[in-house]
This record gives sequence, C-alpha cells and structure tokens, in this order.
Amino acid sequence: MTKKSDAPSKRTRVKRLHERGRYDRETIYSILDATPVCHVSYVIDGRPAITPTLQWREGDRVYWHGSNASQMLRAAKDNDVCLAVTLLDGLVLARSALHHSVNFRSVLVFGRPEQVPDHEKEMRMRNFLDGLYPGRWESLRPIQAKELKATMVLSMPIDEASAKVRTGQPVDDEEDYALPIWAGVVPLAQTTQPPEADPRNLPDVEIPDHVRAIKPG
Amino acid sequence: MTKKSDAPSKRTRVKRLHERGRYDRETIYSILDATPVCHVSYVIDGRPAITPTLQWREGDRVYWHGSNASQMLRAAKDNDVCLAVTLLDGLVLARSALHHSVNFRSVLVFGRPEQVPDHEKEMRMRNFLDGLYPGRWESLRPIQAKELKATMVLSMPIDEASAKVRTGQPVDDEEDYALPIWAGVVPLAQTTQPPEADPRNLPDVEIPDHVRAIKPG
Repeated sequence: MTKKSDAPSKRTRVKRLHERGRYDRETIYSILDATPVCHVSYVIDGRPAITPTLQWREGDRVYWHGSNASQMLRAAKDNDVCLAVTLLDGLVLARSALHHSVNFRSVLVFGRPEQVPDHEKEMRMRNFLDGLYPGRWESLRPIQAKELKATMVLSMPIDEASAKVRTGQPVDDEEDYALPIWAGVVPLAQTTQPPEADPRNLPDVEIPDHVRAIKPG
Repeated sequence: MTKKSDAPSKRTRVKRLHERGRYDRETIYSILDATPVCHVSYVIDGRPAITPTLQWREGDRVYWHGSNASQMLRAAKDNDVCLAVTLLDGLVLARSALHHSVNFRSVLVFGRPEQVPDHEKEMRMRNFLDGLYPGRWESLRPIQAKELKATMVLSMPIDEASAKVRTGQPVDDEEDYALPIWAGVVPLAQTTQPPEADPRNLPDVEIPDHVRAIKPG
C-alpha cells in the first residue's frame, strides 16, 4: 500500500500492451488535473460498485466529497477503493478490425481513503472550487457551518497509481499497409459552449472572468 | 439479479438526490449508446479494481471485448461486475459553494458477464465496429481465425441497471437568489476535430463517408 507511483506494484503494473504504461508522477498528475470526473469503485456486500464523482488533486493526494449520507463515501472510507480518471482523445481507425483502437489517457489510483478532519473541510472545498474556477470562492455567499457538517471529504495518497496513454496512428500488421484502406485518427476534444446565464440572475450581474476562462480537458 | 430495469433494485435505487434517478430502458439505452467509453469494476483478491474499456449495446445486452489474456476479462467473466457509462454535459455554477454541480448522464449496470461463444464472436465484433462506423467492416481486411481465437467477448443482460441525469440551472437556497452573484451553466460537448490520415495510407485512398459522419456524444 505504500508503493510509490514511480514504480509499478503488482496491481498497478500495466499488463496488457505494457509499453503504454507510465508510472511517473508528472504524467499521473497531469491526467488527474485534466478533468474532475472520476469513477470510484468499492466493494459492498462483497460485490463491486462504481460511483461517478468529481475529484481534485492537492500535491500527492487526491480528494473527493459528497453528502455525509452518501452510500459510496460510507463504503469507501477506510476501505479499499480504486479511483479511475479517463480521457478519450481520439478514435483510431485501422486496416483490420482488431487493430482499431482509441487514443486515451487514463489513471488508476488504489488505496484506502481517509476522512478529512472537520477543521480542514472548508479549506479543501475552497481548493476544489478555486481549482476549477480560480477566484470564484471569494465571490460566493460564505459556506455555512451546517453545510460543512453535512459534507464528507475523503482523501487518499497517490502512492499506488499508474497511467496508461495511447497516442498516434494505428499500428497495423505490416502486410496490411499495402491495402487501399483509409486509416487514421479522428481526434476528439471536450469543448465549452457559450455560458448560459441563470434566468434568475439579478439584472446587473456580469459574467466573471473565471467563467470566460473555463477550458476543460 | 433478474430485476428488470424499469424498477430499481436495492443496488440500483438512486439514493442521493433520488429525483435524478431513472429506470426506464429508453433513458438507459440512450446513454449507453451515446459513448463507447465505460468503466468496468470487478473484485480481485477481495479488492476493487477498474478497467476503462469500450462497450456496445445490442438489444437488452451490453458487450465488451479484449484479449484472452486480459486480467480484467478473466476476473470479470462469470463474476459480479459493475459497468458505468458517464457523460459530462456541463458545469453548473451556483451562488454558494455546495450548490455547484455538473450536468451529466450516467448509467450503472450490475451483473455477471458471460463469455460469448466462439461462433458468435465475429458477428459481435462486426456489430461493434459497424455501430461506431457504419459500413466500415466491409471495407477492411477480413478478420482472421487466429485473431478471433485471441479475443474474448463478454456480454451481460441490462437487467439490473439505473440511470442518473442532471440538467439545467443551479438550484440555490431561495434567499441566495437575491445576491448579485453570476450563476449559470457552461455546457460541455465532445467534438471531433478534422481526421488525420495515416501517413502510410496509399496515395489514392480517399476518406470514406463513415469517417466524415462520426459524431460522438
């Protein structure tokens, strides 16, 4: 459980197509930082369950949060979990069916999340929100003690983790390159559309810079 | 395990923010059909693991595939898994920190996947590829017996499944609507970029219609 992420453990060693495996912190952190969406899996009644949720990273730890009443948080706390972040970067079309693929970046983090103590929760929530929208926290109605009390924040060290990355063109069987079949990559990107203001905004409220600056992926 | 997806089971009933839960097949199928990317969780040595992979739907079953040597496929076959598909549709900015949210569509399918028999594998792989790229299968070098032999296809009924969907503007505390804070939604969409032809394509090969027609999400 204390395996450092710069070398694979039994669980994190990429076994299939192992040349795609990466274990350096720079790669792992850059993927975690590229999107908040993650999937957390945990075992409940001996069977696997997944909850999609939002994660953020601070240093060498990953965080997520939810209601105190969340079944996922209660099942995950102090128990084994696997947290996955995956970005789809492109469709890869090859000259034969089974060499079709996708370009992607993914990270798995294994560990046992701990509950963030009460006195840290406000700071963690602020770091989460300001990480997505720099400066937004200051512009909001202050968070209330009862809101913090109803919130659980979990945190896990990024110790046993691995990344897997595929980029570039298809890799076909050598003899298939002679075939007159179009092969290539269709890149995919997550893009923002123009912000849609809440119709209940006060009339003189202007869109802040941190909203204009949002760039996902 | 034989719960039909038009009513929740103990595992699939959406507990948090239950008004976002949906159990009708139309909603569940439309989310599964919107993206091939999924996360499959399974238990290995008593602990949870996740593998991101690609899924496709045929009727009331979900399929995925990989190498016969895949640890995930071997661990998942005939054992309990949870398969998740999640689409991020927008960032939801509220007037207080904890009412920030995201718009999303997600599906969970619980079950025990079965191995697709050998004589069905070619048909299933064809359905997968033609589902993503209609007509592509016919244009390819034929699949080989040895390729099919090295491939495992798993399939699971969509019986115990649930969807969760959030749309629209933030829901703030009533008194906060009087505050001069910009609130709203930043919609997100997965978009395609112009196709990048493999430099090793033969000189007279043109881009097929099924590549131009790709529209994810």
